[in-house]
Parts: sequence; structure tokens; C-alpha cells
Amino acid sequence: MKFTAYILDVMTDSVYPARITVDEGVFKDITPIHVTEETKIDVEGLILPGFIDAHIHIESSMLTPAQFAKIAVRHGTTSVVSDPHEIANVCGIEGIDFMIENASQVPFNFYFTAPSCVPATSFETSGAILNSDDIEFLLQKDEIVALGEMMNFPGVINGDDEVLRKLELARKYKKPIDGHAPLVSGEDLDKYLEQCIVTDHECSNFQEAIEKKQKGMKIMVRDGSSAKNMEALFDFSERIEHLKNQDSFGIIPTEVLERRIYSPIFDFIVSDDKHPNDLIHGYLDKSVKKAADLGIDIIKAIEMVTINPATHYGLDAGSIVIGAKADFVVIDNLEDFNILKTYVAGECVFDGENVLFDVTEVEAENSIDATKKTAEDFEVYFDGDECEVNVIECYNGELLTGKTTATLNVKDGKVQPDIYEDILKISVVERYGGNSVANAFIKGFGLKKGAIASSVAHDSHNIIVVGYCAETMAEAVNEIIDNKGGFAIVSEDFSDSLSLPIAGLMTNEDAYVVAKKLDVLHRMSSALGCKLDSPFMTMAFMALLVIPSLKISDLGLFDGDNFEFIDVIKN
Amino acid sequence: MKFTAYILDVMTDSVYPARITVDEGVFKDITPIHVTEETKIDVEGLILPGFIDAHIHIESSMLTPAQFAKIAVRHGTTSVVSDPHEIANVCGIEGIDFMIENASQVPFNFYFTAPSCVPATSFETSGAILNSDDIEFLLQKDEIVALGEMMNFPGVINGDDEVLRKLELARKYKKPIDGHAPLVSGEDLDKYLEQCIVTDHECSNFQEAIEKKQKGMKIMVRDGSSAKNMEALFDFSERIEHLKNQDSFGIIPTEVLERRIYSPIFDFIVSDDKHPNDLIHGYLDKSVKKAADLGIDIIKAIEMVTINPATHYGLDAGSIVIGAKADFVVIDNLEDFNILKTYVAGECVFDGENVLFDVTEVEAENSIDATKKTAEDFEVYFDGDECEVNVIECYNGELLTGKTTATLNVKDGKVQPDIYEDILKISVVERYGGNSVANAFIKGFGLKKGAIASSVAHDSHNIIVVGYCAETMAEAVNEIIDNKGGFAIVSEDFSDSLSLPIAGLMTNEDAYVVAKKLDVLHRMSSALGCKLDSPFMTMAFMALLVIPSLKISDLGLFDGDNFEFIDVIKN
Repeated sequence: MKFTAYILDVMTDSVYPARITVDEGVFKDITPIHVTEETKIDVEGLILPGFIDAHIHIESSMLTPAQFAKIAVRHGTTSVVSDPHEIANVCGIEGIDFMIENASQVPFNFYFTAPSCVPATSFETSGAILNSDDIEFLLQKDEIVALGEMMNFPGVINGDDEVLRKLELARKYKKPIDGHAPLVSGEDLDKYLEQCIVTDHECSNFQEAIEKKQKGMKIMVRDGSSAKNMEALFDFSERIEHLKNQDSFGIIPTEVLERRIYSPIFDFIVSDDKHPNDLIHGYLDKSVKKAADLGIDIIKAIEMVTINPATHYGLDAGSIVIGAKADFVVIDNLEDFNILKTYVAGECVFDGENVLFDVTEVEAENSIDATKKTAEDFEVYFDGDECEVNVIECYNGELLTGKTTATLNVKDGKVQPDIYEDILKISVVERYGGNSVANAFIKGFGLKKGAIASSVAHDSHNIIVVGYCAETMAEAVNEIIDNKGGFAIVSEDFSDSLSLPIAGLMTNEDAYVVAKKLDVLHRMSSALGCKLDSPFMTMAFMALLVIPSLKISDLGLFDGDNFEFIDVIKN
Repeated sequence: MKFTAYILDVMTDSVYPARITVDEGVFKDITPIHVTEETKIDVEGLILPGFIDAHIHIESSMLTPAQFAKIAVRHGTTSVVSDPHEIANVCGIEGIDFMIENASQVPFNFYFTAPSCVPATSFETSGAILNSDDIEFLLQKDEIVALGEMMNFPGVINGDDEVLRKLELARKYKKPIDGHAPLVSGEDLDKYLEQCIVTDHECSNFQEAIEKKQKGMKIMVRDGSSAKNMEALFDFSERIEHLKNQDSFGIIPTEVLERRIYSPIFDFIVSDDKHPNDLIHGYLDKSVKKAADLGIDIIKAIEMVTINPATHYGLDAGSIVIGAKADFVVIDNLEDFNILKTYVAGECVFDGENVLFDVTEVEAENSIDATKKTAEDFEVYFDGDECEVNVIECYNGELLTGKTTATLNVKDGKVQPDIYEDILKISVVERYGGNSVANAFIKGFGLKKGAIASSVAHDSHNIIVVGYCAETMAEAVNEIIDNKGGFAIVSEDFSDSLSLPIAGLMTNEDAYVVAKKLDVLHRMSSALGCKLDSPFMTMAFMALLVIPSLKISDLGLFDGDNFEFIDVIKN
């Protein structure tokens, strides 16, 4: 393939017209040309390196890697560094192997990290454990480019042997270590950094990011579906304030200072998670444009999704240079930033209308090992007329929960939820053969009837269910068991489900189908009175024990502030 | 050690005041502080990371590594990546070991590269050969951080087996490869880059650097004693012209373009070579200030001698962050840029007046294996009254030479130089036991009497001598043999020499002493009529066969354009 085009060159921060030859998947030749009135430029628009998402959990898209690739290339993304943390919690190494194998079927660059924290805690039943031997096995694979985000920062700070061993192995195999250290600062952060953990994507504000950056970390600006901090980190008033407070004005010559205010001091733009209903509208293309709209130099924003991650993880990607893999994107212009075409290894994979590769369906083995449930499984029993209970308080779109209490009636020995006070039942059903069920109460969902259930429940992905009536809850859970995983809504008036038969996390369907089904489920949950925008997402985080305050695992109600189980019924 | 100071933070491109604790040689703690009127800032000025010279041949300073360190720290440099190419040509692995050993005695960070091209050509007698097995041995050493500059670009381009093997070894041991590809462009450059050769310090103009940069190379801007390209590469009219020509204006939003004009697109500032008479006046400190004077953003210029080289070569240096080695410099301010103090691993090594470490003298083994010479050795014989000869034409301060001819008288069978036409005799005396002498003629030195000789003659460092009269030439060469190497000037009126007994390249003396002695020698050569500013340097390049056009080795007169020997006397 030979053509002329304007190249956005991330090496020299400029645009130049060139004659390009692509052969055997690589840029064989790139010769700058001089444009006169007669010169025919074949490609309308501008060509950019294909975008790289330096941090995503593909499972969050509910799509297989191959289906994920299909929607990603529509938005100019050609590479991702993916942490298969979710599937690893369900199926261990086998799950990671599945991701690698499935990813290899499509013209898209999937790089993976070795999930460092499986299981996330010892207070839940997961489908697998990855010990340091497993990590060593994974780190030796070419497809594994880093040790995945080290979420167990208390383990690092307190010097847990197994955690330290995993970190040491990453250094031994010269693979970078991704971090995850929300609000960790001061001496704790220093200890965390002693282990050569380099990246962080958990900064919730500018000051936190500045401290981490000053201490040598590379900062991932996050523009995901549930995780977002771009507005906070690209806040120029904060940047100027920072420079002022730190006495830079006065010491650094003013013209030097002014030039750097609009240059990002952070390193990557990543998604962390992307739901299908967002993915169909945009991906890193939208994030780059958003960064530019916030005032960031657009070329620097582009570098945050091209050359920067490529350099950090040592990927054959990120720039349009001779010898590099011919991954590139055609955009209309830097203002509108519409993706016109996407190429991977010299092949057009998206022509502006259609994605030009097929995806073969995956035969999913059932990963749900749970017996059918009855209403009795979801009852909390108490001997008396009423009792005081501990209640999880959830907030729309947040991972953090509050801890509250409620006084509930008891009928026939069963503690009753209170629809007027929005106190519903929440339960986690173990899905790895043990069949335990933990029951508790939750405030904030707003459901007036029915139940919603899901097999996506971070990080162990047991089945989680919220509802008013135990029968309906059992029905919803059983629907999920029948479907080999997924989402379900059950009520007297209507029921529906989205089957996620691959590890209970993913489906063979494409992004548009999944987004549509999710839309229907969301509308149903609203009809049932649910006040949350994404009830399945919010529910998925109710089992994420590492984020405070009150959470639930299959083993019981969990106090994240004190890192211990507590009783549902208060003494 | 605990103190408060303003830090220039290369991670966030800003300045901030902090309380700093240095312990066991590392930054143990750095806590940003808020400055009020009462706050006492202990350190006047600003602290910066210690500077790193990413490419230098220490031998060019004529100082031992330890003595080099003594002068370098006066100017804020605390680390160098040094290619021991010169000593390797003389003494092979043993010479490199000497450099590493000598370097280890002082508080300074010496990193070395494995010299890739020893000998430089097969048209000269060198003291050693480093084959690919030797390179493999070297690449396994911790002190060796890269494969040294691959000067043999024809060998790379034409696929010489031994050259390719050395390059493959560097990739195997995951050590970056330094390049050296003057004026190599187009397809030749593409072939050179296929080998993953990453850096280049040989760009002589902006366009050359842009091509290399666009093709993915990291560009070293060179501000050495004989090698300089900073003015050419930091030329903003060129940069603006470049952006204009390449149609960046019109495609990239104007405000985005304007911001980047004064940001360097190149990567490092290096010296390549530094003579003692320059070193006593400044080093990278002067180069950074020069870059700023040329309009480059000073913080970016500082990054070119700190974080950029540290990241590229993977050095524990280049930024002031907790856990890093406490190498830092105190400067007065960013405009005047005077070095007030220098610290290496937390120890003050330069207090503004004195260097605070001692250097032990090296016992030098004699590396000159040559018998004493007589006048006869330096005669060119011809049977006739006159003859036409090929003549090297040298130019002040240039490595390139011209090729000219002259008609010379013959007396007693000996071809006579012509002082009126400035045709002098030039000879190279083999110093590795073989005792061959090659004689030829040179124009451009301007000597009216006497002879000057040197054992510094790139790349094989045989003894080179220029003069009018064979007796004086023999005397000058014998003086060097007596001195175990160095420089010598001999005339009827006066004689003097600088002994360089370590490999015939370096001395135990300090920079000030050497600079003073060099000054005397320079004044003497002027008194003898020499028109060159640095006759020893110019002479040293007359044996550098890889730079055209006419050169001389111990094996004869060499035509660098056709890469073959030619006769002194024309047919």
C-alpha cells in the first residue's frame, strides 16, 4: 500500500505531508514531500498513530476481547494494556489464557498485565488464587507486559511476604509495576514507591496527583465509565494555584512558566473501565477531545494515548515511523477529531462505516457452580418483634458506601425490609461450589418491588442481589444461574435478563446489542422505582470490600473501615 | 542531613520549597512546605538534580576519570555516560577495566558503554581488537549501560556479520545502542535504524536532526570542545521554517503551535569531548545556559541533562525524588546559573571553592612499545630532482581534510618540504611494537621551524608528528617515547612537552595543570609559526581515517573518499 497523507508526528510535535509505503504490516517507507498546487494528497484529513489505552479491564465492557476490539477500532483505538483481574478472580490462569487466546483472533493489539491481587481479600470466596508462583509463570509470557495494579497497598506498606515476592518478581523479569493507591500519601506512599511501583490511576484530586508525580510516579488520567478524574487533574486554576503556591512564580522566568501551564504534567489518558453503552458513543477519541476542550494542548493529549504508553510499556506502537507496526488512524481535523478510518498492521479495520473483521463465537463453559435458591436462603431471622440492623448506604455512581442503621419489624421470625424507608435486602450468593449466602440490608436503591441480580460483583464476582421480597430475589438469582451468569430483573409485572455466560462477566454479543439490552434493563429498574442511574454497576461495587465503609461478601457483612466482619443485627 | 530548600522539580516542571532529609546517600524524605515570612530556607538559591553528560569520551580531557570528576563537579555534573573508545583502541579490555576501576575511587557516577568499533578500520595498527565475544563480555557488566556509538555505519548498512552480531548482543542484553551516523539519510538511515540504534550525536544541521528524529531517533545536541552543533539544532528560524514548510500551520491550531516553538524537540545535551582548557571554564552548566540564551525553555534544557538521559539509560539519577540517590546541585538562580555547590550521594563534593575529595595517583604502565627513531625514519626518498606528491590539506578546527598536490625538490634522494608553500612533513609512527613509520606531506599547519608530535591520534593513537626537518621530528617523537606518551614540541630555540603516560592519552595531573601546560604548548606552536588554534587536536584527527578526504595511518597515506591507500609520490 502506497499513499500520500499528512502525518501528525509525535516525535517532532508537528505535522508533515509524506509519501507512505506500508508493506507486510509495517511502515516500510515514509518520505516527506513538498506540497505544491499539483500535489495530490490521497488521504483526506490527518493520520495519527493508533490510540493506546494504557489501563483497562476489558471485562468491564461485558464484551469478549474480540468484540471489544470491534467497537474500539471504530474510535481509533488499536492497542490496550488490559488487566484481566476480573476473569482471574473467577477462573485464574485459565481465564487469563482465554483472554489471550480470544484476543489473538482479531487484528488488534492486546497486551496484558499479570493480576497482582487475586483474590482481593481473604474475606470473600473467589474462584481462584494467584500466588507468587502463578505470577512468575505469567510474567514470563510475552503477552504479559507488566505486573497489574497493586491494589493491596496495605500489604505493600506493611511488608506482606507474598505481596513483596510478587513485586520482586516483576523487577526480576524487568516488567513495570502498575499501581493503585487511592489517597495514599506521605510516608505510606513513600513505602509503596520503594517497591518501584510506577503508575497510578487512582488520584481523585490535583494535589494527590502532584504529590505522586513529584515522587516520581507516572500519572494516568482516568476517563472511564465509572472512574473519572480528568476534570480534576486537568484543572488549570489548580495548576496555576499550584505553581503560585510553590513559589514557582518569582523563581522561574515568567515566560517560561506561562508556556508550561497548558502542557499536561501527567502521562497517560486511560479508561480503567468502559461500559458498552458508553463505548458505542466513543472511547479514547472522545477523551482526547475532552482534554483539548479542557484546554490541554491537543498534541500532548494525543501523546498521552500514543507515544507515552508505548514508551512506558515497551510496545511496538505509538508513532508513525519507518519499521513500526502500521497502526494508524485517519481523523478529519484536530478540532472536530472524528475518526474516519482505522488501520491495524497496515490493514483497514474500520472504513468509517463498518468494522472489517469478523469475530467467532466463544463456547462458554459454565463458571457458575451454585444450586438453585429458595426464598428461605434470603431471609434474616430474629427472635423478637423488631430489631436494629446495620445498613449499607449506597450513593448513585459511587464506590464508597456509608454505614447506617435501621429498626425493622420481624414477622414469623423473619426480619422485614422497609420499603418506606428504602431499606431493602441485599445478598451475596457464593458461586464457586460452596453455596453459602450472606444476607444484609441496603439503603439507596429505591426499588419499590422486584429484585435485581448480577454475577458481576467486584472482585470475586459472586452473585449479588438486591430486592424487597425473598421469593423474587431467589427467582432473580436462579435466572442468573440458568443463564450461566449475567444481569437479571424480576418483578410481578415483567422480567428480563442479560446473559453473560463467559465467566459470568462477558457475552458473545457485540457492543450495540449489549448496550441496547442494558438500556432495557435500566428502564425496567427505573420503572420498579430504582433511583440509581446504573443499578448493576452500583450493585457490583457493594461487594468490593477494599473500598469503605460497609460492604458485603458471600461470607457476611463487612466493615471496610476496620477491615472485619460485623453482624447484620446489632446487639 | 536535613535542610529546607527550593527544588527544581523536573517531574512537574515547577519549583517548590521543601524540607529535605538525606540519609545513607539517598533522599530519605522530601516534604513540601508552605513558606511564610518566618520560614527559614536553609539553602540560598535553587537545588537541581546533578547533571548527566549522556555522551563523552573522557580520554579527550587527557584526565583520568578521577581527575575528570574533580573538574566536572565544579560545574554541577555528577554523572557521565562515557564511551572508553580511545583507551580501548590502545589497551583493549584492560584499558576499559582501568577506567572502571579508576572511576570507582571517587564520589561521582561513571557509567560506561562497550566500544563497538575497535579498531575503527583495518587500515591501521591498533593496540587491540574488540570482537563480538569481547563485546558480549562487556555487555554483561553492570557498569556498562549501552553499546557504544556504532561508527561503522557502512558496516551496518552493508550487513557486516561481526557488526550485526555486536548489535544483536546489545539487544539480547537489553542495553540501548548509541549511534553515530553523520549525514546518513534516506534508505541508508532506514537500514541503520532497523538495528535498533537509538541515539545520534552527529547531526550537523537541523534538517538532518529532524529526519532522524522523525524516524524515531533520540537526538543528542552536542556542545563539546571540537564537536558542536547546538547553534544549528536550536535555531528557531529553522524550527519555524520547518513547521511552516511541513504545513503544520493551517493544520495545528495556531496557539498550540506557538507554544511548542520554544520547546526543544531534541533529547539530550552532551559534550562528546571536552578539553581541559575548556573544562576549567565550564561544562554542562555552560551548555544549559547557552541553550537558554539561544531561546530554549531553560527547564527543558535542564531536563536534557537530567531526567532525559537518566530515563534513557536507566540511571539512578536525574531527579530529586524520595528514594533516589542524593545527587544534586545548588545554583544561584535560573538566569545567572552559577553552580554554588555540588553533592553526590548526599556528600558535598564541591563547596563553591574547593573540591572535597582526593584523587590517588595512577601508576602507569608504559603503553608505548616503539624503538627510538632517527631522522632517516622520516624521509621520503625519490630518485630524481623533483617530484609531485599528494598532500593532505588541513583546516583550522576541522576533522575533514582536503586533498591537494605539490611539486617538491629532491636533495640527496630525499624529498624536501616547502616552507614557502607551507608543505610540511607528516608521519605516523606505529607504537604497538611493529615500529613501522608512514611518511607524507601536509599543508595548513604553517610551522616555520621545529616539529610537534603527539600520541593522541584518533582512533588508533599511534604517534603522529608534523614538522619541517626530519631530525627535529625524530627528536619530538623520541621525547614522546621517553614520556610514555603525550604532546611534544621541539625546535632549535625551545622544547617542551606534556606527558600523558596513561595509555599515552591521559595524565595524573589535574585539569588546571594540564590546561596551563597546554596553553604553553599552544603559545610555543604559535611562536613557531603555526596557524592552528589547537594544533594537537587538529593533528589528532589527521589519522582519523573514517573522516574524508586524505588522511594518514601508520600503514600509509589513506584516501578516505575511496577507502584505500594511495602513494605519496604521484606517478
